[in-house]
Amino acid sequence: MQTAETSTNPTDAAVDLGPATALSCRECGHRVPLGPVFACEECFGPLEIAYDFSDYDAEELRKRIEAGPANIWRYAPLLPVPADVATKPNINPGWTKLVQADNLARELGVTGGLYVKDDSGNPTHSFKDRVVAQAIEAARAFGFTTLSCSSTGNLAGAVGAAAARAGFRSCVFIPHDLEQGKVVMAAVYGGELVGIEGNYDDVNRFCSELIGDPAGEGWGFVNVNLRPYYAEGSKTLAYEICEQLGWRLPDQIVVPIASGSQLTKIDKGLKELIELGLVEDRPYKIFGAQAEGCSPVSTAYKAGHDVVRPQKPNTIAKSLAIGNPADGPYVLDIARRTGGAVEDVTDEQVVDAIKLLARTEGIFAETAGGVTVGVTRKLIENGVLDPSLTTVVLNTGDGLKTLDAVAGTGLTATIRPNLDSFREAGLA
Amino acid sequence: MQTAETSTNPTDAAVDLGPATALSCRECGHRVPLGPVFACEECFGPLEIAYDFSDYDAEELRKRIEAGPANIWRYAPLLPVPADVATKPNINPGWTKLVQADNLARELGVTGGLYVKDDSGNPTHSFKDRVVAQAIEAARAFGFTTLSCSSTGNLAGAVGAAAARAGFRSCVFIPHDLEQGKVVMAAVYGGELVGIEGNYDDVNRFCSELIGDPAGEGWGFVNVNLRPYYAEGSKTLAYEICEQLGWRLPDQIVVPIASGSQLTKIDKGLKELIELGLVEDRPYKIFGAQAEGCSPVSTAYKAGHDVVRPQKPNTIAKSLAIGNPADGPYVLDIARRTGGAVEDVTDEQVVDAIKLLARTEGIFAETAGGVTVGVTRKLIENGVLDPSLTTVVLNTGDGLKTLDAVAGTGLTATIRPNLDSFREAGLA
Repeated sequence: MQTAETSTNPTDAAVDLGPATALSCRECGHRVPLGPVFACEECFGPLEIAYDFSDYDAEELRKRIEAGPANIWRYAPLLPVPADVATKPNINPGWTKLVQADNLARELGVTGGLYVKDDSGNPTHSFKDRVVAQAIEAARAFGFTTLSCSSTGNLAGAVGAAAARAGFRSCVFIPHDLEQGKVVMAAVYGGELVGIEGNYDDVNRFCSELIGDPAGEGWGFVNVNLRPYYAEGSKTLAYEICEQLGWRLPDQIVVPIASGSQLTKIDKGLKELIELGLVEDRPYKIFGAQAEGCSPVSTAYKAGHDVVRPQKPNTIAKSLAIGNPADGPYVLDIARRTGGAVEDVTDEQVVDAIKLLARTEGIFAETAGGVTVGVTRKLIENGVLDPSLTTVVLNTGDGLKTLDAVAGTGLTATIRPNLDSFREAGLA
Repeated sequence: MQTAETSTNPTDAAVDLGPATALSCRECGHRVPLGPVFACEECFGPLEIAYDFSDYDAEELRKRIEAGPANIWRYAPLLPVPADVATKPNINPGWTKLVQADNLARELGVTGGLYVKDDSGNPTHSFKDRVVAQAIEAARAFGFTTLSCSSTGNLAGAVGAAAARAGFRSCVFIPHDLEQGKVVMAAVYGGELVGIEGNYDDVNRFCSELIGDPAGEGWGFVNVNLRPYYAEGSKTLAYEICEQLGWRLPDQIVVPIASGSQLTKIDKGLKELIELGLVEDRPYKIFGAQAEGCSPVSTAYKAGHDVVRPQKPNTIAKSLAIGNPADGPYVLDIARRTGGAVEDVTDEQVVDAIKLLARTEGIFAETAGGVTVGVTRKLIENGVLDPSLTTVVLNTGDGLKTLDAVAGTGLTATIRPNLDSFREAGLA
């Protein structure tokens, strides 16, 4: 019998993905065996991982997690990975800092406790390491040998780095005219980095073609045919936040929206912790954050719609610039069901928020972090977010990757190298 | 009585810096009370922290450390900080990954276990967060209100971020014509960022003037008048490496040399762990790594000299470009005493080593990391470093901060968005 490790035909592989038992359609509930598929054969709905957690005792599980490694694999019992995942070569992201943001809280008038979950501490400095690390384990289980994706930024670096560590070939597709800095960040890991003559939509269309072609056999596209596994990585943000709060749910959590997947998986993670008895069952509110220049979900939320109308993105928050977010309707559901909201801020407010977070907490966030902090401020000012409740704001990336956003920041003074000049400048 | 927290006259403050009892001259042993001084009044030698560790029981101490936070404050009992340091606002660096670098080991022929201590995981992505976090606690104890330094890179960002979090004013001095990207990285934290019309030497001379002037009263210069405290932060690298190896000394460790302080403090940390009974007492070898374009210590080592002759730096490894390293003679001592060595590599070898580390382990290192990996390779090839022994290589910074070094890296292919073009490029 072929083992998963050596199989060249992924669908025949005998897979061990721990507590994951099947793929289940989010729309119609149709189940299929674990494999590299992402859309329901019955209704074309998105497939999600189904688990068997029935054997777990809450107290034992908590102890097992707390004794685990300082990365996402401490939650291996709740993820689609084999029990010995921590022994395999991978990028091992997670267990990033939950920063108690007292200075920011004072500025925003938050009295109930404000925390920043700072995912810039991941290996390639964005939350993408979490999802790619999951995709790696799925790729290993299905016998894939090449890891691939389309990307314009964070994902390319995360795939390149993780593939290098885990011993996969990587082949990443990007628009051919991407800024040189971003190309370097993705190219340094030594995988194939292919420029496509066209825009990001052309890149995606090409990848879809490749998946259906024999040339793409043995290729795992992290956010396409491995998407159900990949997406589960975002649950670890929910797990970590609760564990770092002392196994307590936050009252309010502010999450950026690109495809919307991260927000839905954070909700899934919180619900799982409640069902498993790891946290007390009480209400929490999830708030979604977008940039005004790409705010299809926020626009639908405010209009009271269930359907999200695509937009053409035009914002500096490029890592969130998905004009037609696949999980938009689910995000609307969750925001409404939990008593949260979806809000957006202008690019100017994004920049202000990046500077506010840096100045108060010493955290230099990517534009996506400016979006969540800016939206938090706006929601407090509008009386939507309750400042007397425990609030967690996500920073999902690193300011070093979006330096252009704050390029106007500079020297506060220029002086000659002597004390007179120092005094003249009013610095004494 | 004035408390340390509110004192405006640092030297009068009653300080609680945990196990630290005095400052002791490294040259003549003369002791002075803990305070913001850095040179011996008797012989002008460098002052170091003296500790009282006599009450510690090895087993209790180990348990206390293991139960501590996932940052450098787990080692509070061994650092010049108060016991409740973890409750104070600080940047909380450390507990970065010790990556088991099996792919790199295969490339280099290391069979005894090769590890990369990856300090790019720190809050501002360099090891400077460790030393600045220490300086912050000393500044707090001495009642300083402004944190300052001269810098051309990593240190400026580390000081800006830590000061923001800890509630200090910061005023950082840099050459006025620094690259815009580096200015932005330092300016975003909102402190004073003052450009000095002159080169880095002019900046340093001005800072020395300022320290002696009333205008500098209440100012803590992290690497000048707070240097004895600041420097101790590097000990935590030694502690973490041993704890992460399962409370075991590495056989060989490769450390970059700028001022040489980090290498001497790693040696101090290893010796302390042996004396405290936290690790077995057996030999270890410390190797120093420099770039050829700034290799005063390596040059002295190879010539068999005890004295280090200053050089004018000319290398892409700018974070190591100190032509007159203060701790150079101590580094020579340590390399010779432990059976290690000091070696240097060319800029071309630095770039090759950055790419090698990225390609094998998915770690994108700053040029300083290219220096240590490049030197490791060279020392193995020359038969100086024993590949059958456990070896730890330090990466002290992040590739995102020195993108220029690998600017030549780029697309491996450019294709049109169709399968024919994909096949023509030989990618299938």
